[in-house]
Amino acid sequence: MAFSLSSSFAARAIVPAARSVVRPSVVCTARRQFRSSAVLGDKPIATLDTSLAPRLPPSSSTLFEAKKKKNLTFEAIAQQVGRDEVAVAALFYGQAMASPEDIQKLSQMLDIPVDQLESELSGYPDRGRCLDMPPKDPTVYRLFEIVQNYGYAYKAVLNEKFGDGIMSAISFSTKIEKETDEKGDWAKITLRGKWLPYTRF
Amino acid sequence: MAFSLSSSFAARAIVPAARSVVRPSVVCTARRQFRSSAVLGDKPIATLDTSLAPRLPPSSSTLFEAKKKKNLTFEAIAQQVGRDEVAVAALFYGQAMASPEDIQKLSQMLDIPVDQLESELSGYPDRGRCLDMPPKDPTVYRLFEIVQNYGYAYKAVLNEKFGDGIMSAISFSTKIEKETDEKGDWAKITLRGKWLPYTRF
Amino acid sequence: MAFSLSSSFAARAIVPAARSVVRPSVVCTARRQFRSSAVLGDKPIATLDTSLAPRLPPSSSTLFEAKKKKNLTFEAIAQQVGRDEVAVAALFYGQAMASPEDIQKLSQMLDIPVDQLESELSGYPDRGRCLDMPPKDPTVYRLFEIVQNYGYAYKAVLNEKFGDGIMSAISFSTKIEKETDEKGDWAKITLRGKWLPYTRF
Amino acid sequence: MAFSLSSSFAARAIVPAARSVVRPSVVCTARRQFRSSAVLGDKPIATLDTSLAPRLPPSSSTLFEAKKKKNLTFEAIAQQVGRDEVAVAALFYGQAMASPEDIQKLSQMLDIPVDQLESELSGYPDRGRCLDMPPKDPTVYRLFEIVQNYGYAYKAVLNEKFGDGIMSAISFSTKIEKETDEKGDWAKITLRGKWLPYTRF
Amino acid sequence: MAFSLSSSFAARAIVPAARSVVRPSVVCTARRQFRSSAVLGDKPIATLDTSLAPRLPPSSSTLFEAKKKKNLTFEAIAQQVGRDEVAVAALFYGQAMASPEDIQKLSQMLDIPVDQLESELSGYPDRGRCLDMPPKDPTVYRLFEIVQNYGYAYKAVLNEKFGDGIMSAISFSTKIEKETDEKGDWAKITLRGKWLPYTRF
Amino acid sequence: MAFSLSSSFAARAIVPAARSVVRPSVVCTARRQFRSSAVLGDKPIATLDTSLAPRLPPSSSTLFEAKKKKNLTFEAIAQQVGRDEVAVAALFYGQAMASPEDIQKLSQMLDIPVDQLESELSGYPDRGRCLDMPPKDPTVYRLFEIVQNYGYAYKAVLNEKFGDGIMSAISFSTKIEKETDEKGDWAKITLRGKWLPYTRF
Amino acid sequence: MAFSLSSSFAARAIVPAARSVVRPSVVCTARRQFRSSAVLGDKPIATLDTSLAPRLPPSSSTLFEAKKKKNLTFEAIAQQVGRDEVAVAALFYGQAMASPEDIQKLSQMLDIPVDQLESELSGYPDRGRCLDMPPKDPTVYRLFEIVQNYGYAYKAVLNEKFGDGIMSAISFSTKIEKETDEKGDWAKITLRGKWLPYTRF
Amino acid sequence: MAFSLSSSFAARAIVPAARSVVRPSVVCTARRQFRSSAVLGDKPIATLDTSLAPRLPPSSSTLFEAKKKKNLTFEAIAQQVGRDEVAVAALFYGQAMASPEDIQKLSQMLDIPVDQLESELSGYPDRGRCLDMPPKDPTVYRLFEIVQNYGYAYKAVLNEKFGDGIMSAISFSTKIEKETDEKGDWAKITLRGKWLPYTRF
Amino acid sequence: MAFSLSSSFAARAIVPAARSVVRPSVVCTARRQFRSSAVLGDKPIATLDTSLAPRLPPSSSTLFEAKKKKNLTFEAIAQQVGRDEVAVAALFYGQAMASPEDIQKLSQMLDIPVDQLESELSGYPDRGRCLDMPPKDPTVYRLFEIVQNYGYAYKAVLNEKFGDGIMSAISFSTKIEKETDEKGDWAKITLRGKWLPYTRF
Amino acid sequence: MAFSLSSSFAARAIVPAARSVVRPSVVCTARRQFRSSAVLGDKPIATLDTSLAPRLPPSSSTLFEAKKKKNLTFEAIAQQVGRDEVAVAALFYGQAMASPEDIQKLSQMLDIPVDQLESELSGYPDRGRCLDMPPKDPTVYRLFEIVQNYGYAYKAVLNEKFGDGIMSAISFSTKIEKETDEKGDWAKITLRGKWLPYTRF
Repeated sequence: MAFSLSSSFAARAIVPAARSVVRPSVVCTARRQFRSSAVLGDKPIATLDTSLAPRLPPSSSTLFEAKKKKNLTFEAIAQQVGRDEVAVAALFYGQAMASPEDIQKLSQMLDIPVDQLESELSGYPDRGRCLDMPPKDPTVYRLFEIVQNYGYAYKAVLNEKFGDGIMSAISFSTKIEKETDEKGDWAKITLRGKWLPYTRF
Repeated sequence: MAFSLSSSFAARAIVPAARSVVRPSVVCTARRQFRSSAVLGDKPIATLDTSLAPRLPPSSSTLFEAKKKKNLTFEAIAQQVGRDEVAVAALFYGQAMASPEDIQKLSQMLDIPVDQLESELSGYPDRGRCLDMPPKDPTVYRLFEIVQNYGYAYKAVLNEKFGDGIMSAISFSTKIEKETDEKGDWAKITLRGKWLPYTRF
Repeated sequence: MAFSLSSSFAARAIVPAARSVVRPSVVCTARRQFRSSAVLGDKPIATLDTSLAPRLPPSSSTLFEAKKKKNLTFEAIAQQVGRDEVAVAALFYGQAMASPEDIQKLSQMLDIPVDQLESELSGYPDRGRCLDMPPKDPTVYRLFEIVQNYGYAYKAVLNEKFGDGIMSAISFSTKIEKETDEKGDWAKITLRGKWLPYTRF
Repeated sequence: MAFSLSSSFAARAIVPAARSVVRPSVVCTARRQFRSSAVLGDKPIATLDTSLAPRLPPSSSTLFEAKKKKNLTFEAIAQQVGRDEVAVAALFYGQAMASPEDIQKLSQMLDIPVDQLESELSGYPDRGRCLDMPPKDPTVYRLFEIVQNYGYAYKAVLNEKFGDGIMSAISFSTKIEKETDEKGDWAKITLRGKWLPYTRF
Repeated sequence: MAFSLSSSFAARAIVPAARSVVRPSVVCTARRQFRSSAVLGDKPIATLDTSLAPRLPPSSSTLFEAKKKKNLTFEAIAQQVGRDEVAVAALFYGQAMASPEDIQKLSQMLDIPVDQLESELSGYPDRGRCLDMPPKDPTVYRLFEIVQNYGYAYKAVLNEKFGDGIMSAISFSTKIEKETDEKGDWAKITLRGKWLPYTRF
Repeated sequence: MAFSLSSSFAARAIVPAARSVVRPSVVCTARRQFRSSAVLGDKPIATLDTSLAPRLPPSSSTLFEAKKKKNLTFEAIAQQVGRDEVAVAALFYGQAMASPEDIQKLSQMLDIPVDQLESELSGYPDRGRCLDMPPKDPTVYRLFEIVQNYGYAYKAVLNEKFGDGIMSAISFSTKIEKETDEKGDWAKITLRGKWLPYTRF
Repeated sequence: MAFSLSSSFAARAIVPAARSVVRPSVVCTARRQFRSSAVLGDKPIATLDTSLAPRLPPSSSTLFEAKKKKNLTFEAIAQQVGRDEVAVAALFYGQAMASPEDIQKLSQMLDIPVDQLESELSGYPDRGRCLDMPPKDPTVYRLFEIVQNYGYAYKAVLNEKFGDGIMSAISFSTKIEKETDEKGDWAKITLRGKWLPYTRF
Repeated sequence: MAFSLSSSFAARAIVPAARSVVRPSVVCTARRQFRSSAVLGDKPIATLDTSLAPRLPPSSSTLFEAKKKKNLTFEAIAQQVGRDEVAVAALFYGQAMASPEDIQKLSQMLDIPVDQLESELSGYPDRGRCLDMPPKDPTVYRLFEIVQNYGYAYKAVLNEKFGDGIMSAISFSTKIEKETDEKGDWAKITLRGKWLPYTRF
Repeated sequence: MAFSLSSSFAARAIVPAARSVVRPSVVCTARRQFRSSAVLGDKPIATLDTSLAPRLPPSSSTLFEAKKKKNLTFEAIAQQVGRDEVAVAALFYGQAMASPEDIQKLSQMLDIPVDQLESELSGYPDRGRCLDMPPKDPTVYRLFEIVQNYGYAYKAVLNEKFGDGIMSAISFSTKIEKETDEKGDWAKITLRGKWLPYTRF
Repeated sequence: MAFSLSSSFAARAIVPAARSVVRPSVVCTARRQFRSSAVLGDKPIATLDTSLAPRLPPSSSTLFEAKKKKNLTFEAIAQQVGRDEVAVAALFYGQAMASPEDIQKLSQMLDIPVDQLESELSGYPDRGRCLDMPPKDPTVYRLFEIVQNYGYAYKAVLNEKFGDGIMSAISFSTKIEKETDEKGDWAKITLRGKWLPYTRF
């Protein structure tokens, strides 16, 4: 077999130190950068399962295709757009709204005509439709399971700490961090929402 | 009621700073301790909706009744037991397992005969049965909604950061923190789980 | 707040004008007060379908039984408690939380020992469990149908008026009014909630 | 019918005061009118998530596309058509029926051939099919949650006020208003329906 | 209203012609009246499946037990109460509301203390909860199947005959008739409801 | 079979008295016949929501399109075919079977090639698939609600009148009538089915 | 009716040949008759899982308990009652109606007071409620699976053989037979129902 | 394998006696053979509702189209293929597997290129996907209802006859027979499966 | 805290060497054997969550209570009964049938009167009712997830290895083994079932 | 790893002994190799039901088509790729991730351009979406049934063997083996997963 992905392939470009400064230039080299030896060990980027597309707005296909062509991580895009990477991924799945500035930056970074992007991203997201609950994919199911098992415990502790109310999922932000210790890698997800007390009426 | 948890116990151990010195006396006066003027402004503690009891193990009723009689927060109990308050609340709802030491401490702190508690808590939890999904209570629903809206975004970012796998909900811990700024209170929930890559076979 | 429910309580306080002077005596004669000729034409009060009780907290049975014995409308109770009648009805169904003052007033007005009421109402409501969705009762179903048919229309208009966000159902109040014209009676339900814009993160 | 929307139509009629003088020109320049600096701060208009289209009648796509091209709010369209903006939005989603006059006005305002619109809008709406219940989008879910939590409270208060019956969702109108105070914006939704007492038979 | 159910009540009043003179004596002898030879060929009366009772209000058990003890058909009860037999059966299942006069008559006819009946029947029915849909019992399922198969056909013909609206199920009455021809017996169910056109708003 | 619908067909045959002389000419002018002033006040005819088409057999689209082009009511078609209008509407929705004579008449009246119609209508209907239950459209839902609320009442009265068995939904016919009194219009739906007693075995 | 089950009843009548002479004595000695060595190899009889009882009419518990005490098979009971054993088993589960003669015979054979049995069996069965679908028990699931896999095949062949209609499940009987060949045992279930053609209307 | 379906094939082989001599010529004239006067009274053949096709393998469309063109009953095809007609119908719906011989015979009889049929029928059936449960079509629903009503009765009788185990739905065959008596037609469905006792382990 | 669980506590008794010969004597010492220091590190035994009991046959409570009192593992019981421990656990949950010998042995080992056990275990199991699917408990869910993710893969490989058919779940056995390597513990579950080819008919 | 897929690839490498010498030539002659006489008796290979394709990623169609054209079993492919055949089948169904080496080998073996395969297989699998639960296909249902029936038994035995935790379905492998004895063929499925104890927090 002749597997030769020209050794010069993106040798530097696509791999951020901490995903760092060089990437923008990468964006331009494009095409066969898939898992070159130079990036051996790197994780592939997330792409869109096309069988999911009919349940997503057209912007999802547009954005994911460009992301795949450019081989960009959400981290890289987020850094460029100036938003958290979870927010950017949510935007790609039609679960968050883009500001005009977001559209400008995405258009430039992903080489998508700004007109097209404006048109496709101009609506208010119809959230939540892409995912059936209970989720079937194990990665998402584990999050669901956490709610199922700890739901009442969260409620009890939140109530004791804050009184009668809810943690907002709207006035809300979230992020994912990676921690590594001798036992391996740990994913840390932080959910942070405004506490909304029930109105007395 | 004779509540004597070795004299030094109540005085210091179970009462977190923020809930201060006055409560222990409250605890002792019993019966009408509900929102006495001394704790005015304090949040009431979390109790068990008895209509939920048939779906919970008998330990839940035992523990929640004692908690109510003692007027203890999960924070106070957690501090005494040496576990996180979410873990303790989960244990009360039958969603976590008690170690022999946990049982000893709960027995003492809550004045429940250790034999009874050993018997009721000796089984392996049959988790997840107390909560119907989708959750109906708004406090719990908001957590569900976060999974529903951001599920694929979490998966995409986790995959990019860690590769193909899941964040474990078993090798897992979680906590709730309260943050306050000029805009009000914020609830911060942290989920931290071991990353488990899919086995290649 | 100066709360003084004197001995003249029943005679004056709880009876709204529109339901007039005759009922208090009814209230006192108890037992056979059901639709006495004096209140002929009045609507009967709302009571609890006991087959629903297992899904409600014990406070619901306590409160509804007392309400029935006293033959009080929610309007009368609400006036006394100083809350909206929908809020009071929600409280009776375990869907809203009672303040210590609410408990005091309900205890006096309904002749329920304050200790019992404090104990039964001390928890944080586990909301939403009493009603299966889609609702089967036609009165409730019509509200559900309104959401089903106009849901997207509401969203579209709210988005255009307020941007990307939601109308809070927590920082929220609601009321029911009756209007009458030549065509008959009209029910007017007002929903009023804080607008919460999505956080950009 | 004599329908004459004179040439001054765009200039005055469709633009509500609050959205001011600058937009009409935007409307005419078309294509890049999206969030021009002149309308900076304005909310974008509501558009149709095309992934929803297969569940809607063809008129929905026709109408929403024209609305997007013209960059018109429902408020503007409603003012022109002479109906409430919620009713117009419902009509766009196939949830309300258009009168011949509505069709004439929509045709003119949106530059859609009247024949096409007559054909596409001539049927009786097959209502309720566009929205899965429980709704997944948070904006719509909050309305659902209000029914879920307050359903029995509404029923109880309605029964006491009106007797045994329902508030009609057919002989019914609804509107959305925006209120602003020092705490922020508030959405106020009014539901008004004829009271229908159960027939005795 | 002058309601006088004299002592001759059982002897004449409640027995419809078609069920003839012999039953009253049966009614009086009680206990073993089940299918005596005198009523051979008669259909047994409808009773309550007690496994259904937990889903019904307590009035259902009270009424059905008395009906069984008296061995009365709904036809006989309906004739006495002055309502349609379907309405009376619905009342027994907690699906219709009793007027004070209904309560008086049912009390006398069924030998149930009026106080008990007033108390148990005083609430507004929480309709629809006794029957799971799709119905499992074949008799009820056939009605469901008629809606399932002919639903759109009904809608289309109703729309053409009446315009955009619904046939009310509230301002509504229904009855069952029996017809016999050479091919056997035929059940004829008539549904009659007020036509409610959609409000234009 | 000798089927001769002479040239005078359109002029007389298909137009029921109540819909009068003016429509035939409308029918012939085609295209813009929609709600001409001459038929002002008439209800529009029922058409097919095309988003429903994928769940219906191809004959549904064929038939409804021809019906729309001809602007014919089900009443007119039924009169010509010699069947009840509900049966004809059911046939259009693929819920009833056409006889060869039905096909001949529909072909002539609707100007559909008989070969095409024979081919599309030759199968046995796969009934019930076009409608999700519970139905979402309010017009159909009301029928469902009638079954839900009165289901057990119907069963009880049917059993008392007929014994143990069911009213057939196969050996069955149904019709819709319109009644008008001073209170407005009333829809009357009659369901008539053979009584089938359970076989003793 | 002359029903005389003489004293020799147990000795001869109820025991089918294949289950032989030894059991009657077992039946009489009661209590420890369970799988005595004499009946070694015999199948145990079917009893009622008491966790199912709340979903069944009280007659089910009565009948099954007596059956268990008498250690009788459905075959033996059916032979005595003169009905098919499936019908008798259905009657035990509340899925079939008992005639007065059935009640007499069951009362005598099972030593249940006839009054009790008359009272408990006097209602019309509320069929189908004991079994959740899809069935979970593998024995019942296999029947469900046959319908799921061959449903359309049955319909197609039935249609070709009989035209448009259904095989009645009411005018219906069924039986189970056992066949044995060199490969083992085979269960043969026969379903036989009246063909009901759709009414043309 | 020597498969020789000679030229006399159509003339004799496929037409069962009961469907007589006239059809073959019909088969040959094609196109307008639908219900010619010669076959007046015959049932039309079963065809495929094309709205079902997306849920079936491509072989279903291929086979049903050829069957329709040839106007063949399953009985005729089954006779030729040498399998039961239910098995053949199941094969057409993708619910049974074809042997190479089946494919040869179907290819010849239905004039479908053997290559195409081999390719389309070569997979293992993914059974059960074409039918939603509970079934909506009344013909199939009746079979479902039989399982729902008699499920536990079947289980009880099977257990008593065979012990603990199941009747296999795999090592299984089934057939449909038509019986006629003075009361009309009767459908008889036989299910015959191997009895599989539970393994003791 | 003074935690002193007398050092002599069951020091030897309850711990089988390899769960071996000493246990019978243990069985007699009973009561406070719960997690003594001597058995530190041992896993507690599995007990029954009493909130599950209403869905299980009465034998489940009987057996699990005795198991708990005796502090016996399923391994120990299985060894005594001579069956696999999974089979024994299934029997405890009402998912497997007991032979007369099993009953004898369980009666002796667990000190349950043989009469009681015979009576409670004499029925045929109504399998599958204790567990809702999808399972909520994470331990059981993982098994469900394996079927969900690998279901088609299993089918494809089974088909290629065995042809068209199924792996029987009746003629079936299963076991759990524990394997330990440097990475930790591994659970190995083996499923072994008879291959049943589809009957050709 | 030394990967050398020489030109002799087809001739030796991919054909497992048990499937013998004749197939390779078949593979090469292509097209009509389906069940040639030489492989008579062999099982056909597994292919993709195209009606399932819309729920799978595009790679599934690509891979299955190539597999069909090459007439390769999963066993043959697995041997070449160096993974278990269940893993390979899972990969084909989009349930497992391909490494770059897997892609190389699959590309060569199946004659699919490596670029296409890289592109289609580059995403992280969105697992579990292809299979509805409960599964309808009998082969898959049996696995589901095993979980349903033995779920709690597995949990109980796992807990006793390992403590509180789960068997991972991620750190997991599985395989299928075929065993044959005098009773026939047996399928043996092994599930092996890492034991994950619940974290104490």
